[in-house]
Amino acid sequence: MKVGILGGGQLARMIALAGYPLGLNFIFLDPSVSACATTLGRHLHGDYHDEYLLAELAKRADVVTYEFENVPANVAEFLAARTQVYPSPKALQIAQDRLLEKEFLNELGIPTASYATVDSWESLQSAMETIGYPAILKTRTQGYDGRGQSVLKSAADLKASWQKLNGLPSIAEGFVNFNREVSIVAVRSVSGELAFYPLSENVHRGGILRLSESRENDVMQAKAEDYATRLMTALEYVGVLALELFEVDGELVANEFAPRVHNSGHWTIEGAETSQFENHLRAILDLSLGSTAAIGKVAMVNFIGGKPESEQVLKIQNAHLHLYAKASRKGRKVAHATVHAATTEELEPLKKRLIMLANDVDDS
Amino acid sequence: MKVGILGGGQLARMIALAGYPLGLNFIFLDPSVSACATTLGRHLHGDYHDEYLLAELAKRADVVTYEFENVPANVAEFLAARTQVYPSPKALQIAQDRLLEKEFLNELGIPTASYATVDSWESLQSAMETIGYPAILKTRTQGYDGRGQSVLKSAADLKASWQKLNGLPSIAEGFVNFNREVSIVAVRSVSGELAFYPLSENVHRGGILRLSESRENDVMQAKAEDYATRLMTALEYVGVLALELFEVDGELVANEFAPRVHNSGHWTIEGAETSQFENHLRAILDLSLGSTAAIGKVAMVNFIGGKPESEQVLKIQNAHLHLYAKASRKGRKVAHATVHAATTEELEPLKKRLIMLANDVDDS
Repeated sequence: MKVGILGGGQLARMIALAGYPLGLNFIFLDPSVSACATTLGRHLHGDYHDEYLLAELAKRADVVTYEFENVPANVAEFLAARTQVYPSPKALQIAQDRLLEKEFLNELGIPTASYATVDSWESLQSAMETIGYPAILKTRTQGYDGRGQSVLKSAADLKASWQKLNGLPSIAEGFVNFNREVSIVAVRSVSGELAFYPLSENVHRGGILRLSESRENDVMQAKAEDYATRLMTALEYVGVLALELFEVDGELVANEFAPRVHNSGHWTIEGAETSQFENHLRAILDLSLGSTAAIGKVAMVNFIGGKPESEQVLKIQNAHLHLYAKASRKGRKVAHATVHAATTEELEPLKKRLIMLANDVDDS
Repeated sequence: MKVGILGGGQLARMIALAGYPLGLNFIFLDPSVSACATTLGRHLHGDYHDEYLLAELAKRADVVTYEFENVPANVAEFLAARTQVYPSPKALQIAQDRLLEKEFLNELGIPTASYATVDSWESLQSAMETIGYPAILKTRTQGYDGRGQSVLKSAADLKASWQKLNGLPSIAEGFVNFNREVSIVAVRSVSGELAFYPLSENVHRGGILRLSESRENDVMQAKAEDYATRLMTALEYVGVLALELFEVDGELVANEFAPRVHNSGHWTIEGAETSQFENHLRAILDLSLGSTAAIGKVAMVNFIGGKPESEQVLKIQNAHLHLYAKASRKGRKVAHATVHAATTEELEPLKKRLIMLANDVDDS
C-alpha cells in the first residue's frame, strides 16, 4: 500500500516513520530538492501546481494526504477526482481561510473571538469600531506560525498595519485575554470511528509554538472533545485534526483548526499508546484506530532556528530527540525533543533543562 | 552522520527507523535486491565478501555495525582496518563459533551446558559417553533459528545425526532440563556506559523464537546482569548484546549470546523508555544511553511463514504491528506484533489473541 503526501517536511517525515512498521510505502510531492521526508520514499520533485506531477502522485498512491493546509482548492480537487484524498478538499478550503473557518466554527456553536471582514481601509475602520482595541489583523489565507499577522494596540497602529496587508483580504479579530492555550488532537477514520488525545497545553511566542505538555484528565477535556466532534462530524472529516483553543474563565474559545497532524501532538510519539502519526495513517486507511491513552506525562519543546548538540539532549533523563534533517535558518523549526516521566513532579526539572536548551539555540 | 550496516533485513530496518529521529543516515550492504531495510537508505547491492563494496561501505559510513553474527572474520577485519566497526571482530568471531563461545563463557565463570567437540565419528562416540543422552548435536558455525541442530535421544540416533553433519566441525551439548528460557538485552557504549533491559522471558518452538514477554523485577535480573557485564567487559563490547539463558532450579545457564540487537528485545520499542535499536545506535556513536526502564508490561509474538491481515492485529486493544516488508516463505520471520498493558492481568487476554493470530499463519 502506497501513501502519497503533498509536502515532504518534518510532518511527512514523522508520518512515514510511523508508517513503515505498518508495511506502507510513501511518495512525496515537494518543490524542495532537500525536503527532509524524501529519503523515506519516492520524491516527486516539483511545484504543487504541476498537473503532470499531481497526476503521477494520484496514479502511484493508493491514498493521498498532506502535511499542510495551504493547498490550493483546485489542486485538492484535481487529486480527489483521481484517487482517495483525506482529509477532503472541503476541510482544506475552510481551514485555509480564516473567515470561512470562523463562520464554520460559529455555525457549529463553537465560540470564537469576535471578528470582522477587512477588505478595504473603510472596512478596517468600521471593524475596529465593533471589535475595539487591542485586536489582531490577519490575512484570510497563507498565515501560519504567526506570519501575516499584526497587533493593533490602538488607532495609531491602523495605518501601518493596513499598509503591511498590501490589500490582501483579511479579518480583524478581537484580542482574547486567555488564561491558557490548549489544543485537542482528534482523529476520525473512514468508517467514522472517533478518538481524542488528552489535551495539549501550549505556549506560543512570536506566533510560534514553543512548548506543549500533555494534560491527562484536564477539566476542559470533555468540552474540547465535544467541539472537535462537532467539527469533524460536520466536515465528514477523515484523519487527524488539531483544534487550537483558548481557555477563558472556564470556557473554551476556538482559535483555529489544522486539518493535519499537528506540532502540539508531537508528544504523542512517546506519551501516548499510539502516536498521532500512526493514527492519521490508520484513519485514512480505514483501519481500527489505536488507543490514544496517555503514557505518563510528557513535555515537548521545539528547537527553532538551530539545534543543540544531540548529546546535550540525550544526557537528560528520559529525553527523546527528533531531528528533522533540515538546515538551520532563522525562525525555522529544525527539531523537537520530549521528556517523559511518571508524574508531573518528576517531569518538571527535566522540562526546565529542555527549555534552557531550546532558549540557547532560539534566534527568533 | 552515516551508519553502515552489514545486512539489510528487519533488524537493520528497525535500527534505521530508530536512527532517523537522531538525524542519522544509513547505508546497507546486502546481497538481496529486495532487502527490506534498503528503502531507508543507500543500498550497496552485492556479496558480503566483495572487497570493492566493503571498501565503499567503510568509506561512506562514519561507523559500521551489523545485524547478524555470521560475518566472516576477514570481512570484519577488512572493515575494522578502514573505519570504526562495533561490536569488534573479536565479539563476532566468538559468537559465531559455538565451541569458542562456550569456552569463553566458562572462562568468565558463566555456566553453560556440558559440551564436547565433535570432529569425527570417534569423537562423537566418546563425547556421548561423557555427556549422556539426551543431547543436542550442533554445527560449530552457521547455526541460527534451530538450523544445523539435531537431537540425540539415544544411541540409535547417532548414525543419522552424524551423517546429517556432513563432516562439519560440531559440538555435542548436554540437554538442559530448564524451567524457563530468558534473555537479557544489554548495552555498552564506546565510553563503557552500561545499561540492561528488564529480562525477556521467551518461548521457542522448532528452534525459533515465538513469544517474548518483558519481566520487570524478575528474581533472575541481577544474576543475568552480572553475566552480561562479565561478557561485555571481557570483550570490550560496544553496542547491544543479547545473552540467552536457561533457568534451571534457580540458577542461570547460558545458552548463547548474540552480538547485536535481538528478537527477544523487540518488545522494547513499546515497552521500554528507549528501544534496543536506539540504544544500539547511541552506544556505537558514543552518546549517553537512554533509559532502559520498562513501561508497563509487554508481550511480543513473531509471525512466521506468513502474516495476518493488519486489521486483525490492529483491532486488538493496545496492539502494535511491525511488518518487515518481506515476502512470505516457510519458516521465515515476516512480522512481529506486541501488546502492551499496565498490568499482567490486563495483558494476558490480549496476548492470547495475538498468539492465536500467530498460530493461524504459522507454517513451521
